[in-house]
Amino acid sequence: MNRNLDANHIVKLLKHGTNQPGEVIPLHEPSLTGKEWQYVKDCLDKGWVSSVGEYVNLFEKKLAQYTGARHAIAVVNGTAALHLGLKIVGVEYGDEVLLPALTFVATANAVHYCGAVPHFIDSDMDTLGIDPKKLDDYLKEITVQKNGCSYNKKTMRPIKALIAVHTFGHPADLDSIHTVCNKYHLDLIEDAAEALGSYYKQKHTGNWGKLSVLSFNGNKIITTGGGGAILTNDTGVAEIAKHVSTTAKIRHRWEFIHDQIGYNYRLPNINAALGCAQIEQIDQFINKKRSLAEKYRQLFKNVTGITFFREPAYARSNYWLNTLILDEKYTASRDSLLEATHEQGILTRPVWTLMNKLDMFQNCPHMDLSIAESLEQRMINIPSSSKLGGEDG
Amino acid sequence: MNRNLDANHIVKLLKHGTNQPGEVIPLHEPSLTGKEWQYVKDCLDKGWVSSVGEYVNLFEKKLAQYTGARHAIAVVNGTAALHLGLKIVGVEYGDEVLLPALTFVATANAVHYCGAVPHFIDSDMDTLGIDPKKLDDYLKEITVQKNGCSYNKKTMRPIKALIAVHTFGHPADLDSIHTVCNKYHLDLIEDAAEALGSYYKQKHTGNWGKLSVLSFNGNKIITTGGGGAILTNDTGVAEIAKHVSTTAKIRHRWEFIHDQIGYNYRLPNINAALGCAQIEQIDQFINKKRSLAEKYRQLFKNVTGITFFREPAYARSNYWLNTLILDEKYTASRDSLLEATHEQGILTRPVWTLMNKLDMFQNCPHMDLSIAESLEQRMINIPSSSKLGGEDG
Repeated sequence: MNRNLDANHIVKLLKHGTNQPGEVIPLHEPSLTGKEWQYVKDCLDKGWVSSVGEYVNLFEKKLAQYTGARHAIAVVNGTAALHLGLKIVGVEYGDEVLLPALTFVATANAVHYCGAVPHFIDSDMDTLGIDPKKLDDYLKEITVQKNGCSYNKKTMRPIKALIAVHTFGHPADLDSIHTVCNKYHLDLIEDAAEALGSYYKQKHTGNWGKLSVLSFNGNKIITTGGGGAILTNDTGVAEIAKHVSTTAKIRHRWEFIHDQIGYNYRLPNINAALGCAQIEQIDQFINKKRSLAEKYRQLFKNVTGITFFREPAYARSNYWLNTLILDEKYTASRDSLLEATHEQGILTRPVWTLMNKLDMFQNCPHMDLSIAESLEQRMINIPSSSKLGGEDG
Repeated sequence: MNRNLDANHIVKLLKHGTNQPGEVIPLHEPSLTGKEWQYVKDCLDKGWVSSVGEYVNLFEKKLAQYTGARHAIAVVNGTAALHLGLKIVGVEYGDEVLLPALTFVATANAVHYCGAVPHFIDSDMDTLGIDPKKLDDYLKEITVQKNGCSYNKKTMRPIKALIAVHTFGHPADLDSIHTVCNKYHLDLIEDAAEALGSYYKQKHTGNWGKLSVLSFNGNKIITTGGGGAILTNDTGVAEIAKHVSTTAKIRHRWEFIHDQIGYNYRLPNINAALGCAQIEQIDQFINKKRSLAEKYRQLFKNVTGITFFREPAYARSNYWLNTLILDEKYTASRDSLLEATHEQGILTRPVWTLMNKLDMFQNCPHMDLSIAESLEQRMINIPSSSKLGGEDG
């Protein structure tokens, strides 16, 4: 039996889907088609490019309005937002933090920055997020409860928090995850770096945990060059996030008093100006991206051996990165498909190497990761910029 | 005897010196008078605002050329550069790092981020930097040498590195500090955040230590919105700085393999574009700032009770922040002078609160800090933007 997929046919479908003849097609490019220049020029004209200026507050206001979170705090990038978020929920040296093995490295690095230990958990085939049932069973087995805190029986370290990643923008099963977190006294942080514009049961992601995290890196649905944000519905969390991200300086006309360890994490005004212009266009970006996803779905629906990943039933996803999943028997075709598409200038990619396989995390605790391991072998992200797939595609 | 300075007279001199009648005069504003628009617009037109684009490499090249360092690595801010620099020289959990008590809080925070303990040292009245003689005497007393490393006798922690700050842009006594570092096996890091354009004995600062650190925050001599850099003459250090600041990802067309804990510290392209335009103007900024300093010096040379701080004899300083030092007997006038100037829209400020007095560092080790304590009570920074002090002032 032939275990090779027809790479030429798939290249042809991707060319048809993206509809950019003759061009190199990146995985995800920004569209700077709104008021970006107007707002950035305003910063330059006023000399307000750094910590002075109105765009940071305005961007935060627009983010809060759009996501429905009470507060947004803009920071230099999603990694900084994760680091700050973990600090704020109280993660300390020697704690453990649960997170999917299937994620971008920043999620695990941020745990390490706190001196804590990442503890890797498995994914769900249908959501690409954490599998709450499997997690519950695992925590039942490996934890012991003491004074309202879960401890890892084996390491005797406290397990403080769980980071739920909305993989490629698809919402994880938040209600069920939230229930598990409550049961085991874990603070829930949503890593919504990829999920701006994604909804779980009609409510925007980022509103389930104590706080959540966005990214506006150049490859995200909107960009500020580099940037990120913390979302929260807790005013106390918002205040501390703003304070600690600006060196924890006490307000005073001239004195320099800082009341705790702080960070230089606040987003500069010029980057926020870009963000203001970008978020004004988000509905249009999402409509285009959802159209592209639908086009891909139609194109791939009859291709043997490949499934186009669709949003979970409870979700309305931003389809940040469109994803093909190879059937198990075609796993060996992954690299040749990557080769064939790259040769044609279609910059596909596989998913991240699982965190537990990276040198610096290989001794960290993890549960059975059979689903994540299977997905790692079988997923391919395909070009997903909002400008792709135009009508005559 | 009257222990009060004549605040009205000093306000009058500052108004004359700055020559901006009727305006609020910030301490230090950016001048965006070059090709900022052109380069930033180019980023927007090409869609290269984030990690893709030529401006980061170009900015690094220009920084290296200007400073004479072999390599420059552009990062999100000076704090990130310090953190990364300390990591690169091998500062680890439980180490001690020497740094002046008289510095901006980022210097001490960066040490804390590594899990290390800041150890505060005194300043020199004539340079505002570390006093190398006093430091040498102190280290002789409190350290013991073992296996080519200095240990703090009292805490038994290794003392790994020393951060020499070039306060307000004035070069510390680098040759003597370097000698002390060699004697005690300390890695020298220059915190040149404020010292772009400052020379020690005809050579640009930032070239003495294993690596050094610049800042391009909005209040610095050139700005990228937020930004910083590591300078080094060591190619190995440069390579690791670049690698670790970009999530330690191994180069590969599509695989995501990261070989160590990394950071999201690389400067975005749009901020680097601003930096390219700014550094093209640096000679002009420094000429203007040195003229302003000379004007202040003339204005204050006969004022009883106040000395305008001048660059050390070995240095050619950028005069980032001009500084008045009150005579000891006029210490009590500091706050009324700050009041009087702020009332008139002249945004002077005192120096930073000494690090050992901040809550989070008050239990950290420190030497006798009598000079720093005296300076803390007596220094006032006065407006220093390059646009001030024009000819007819």
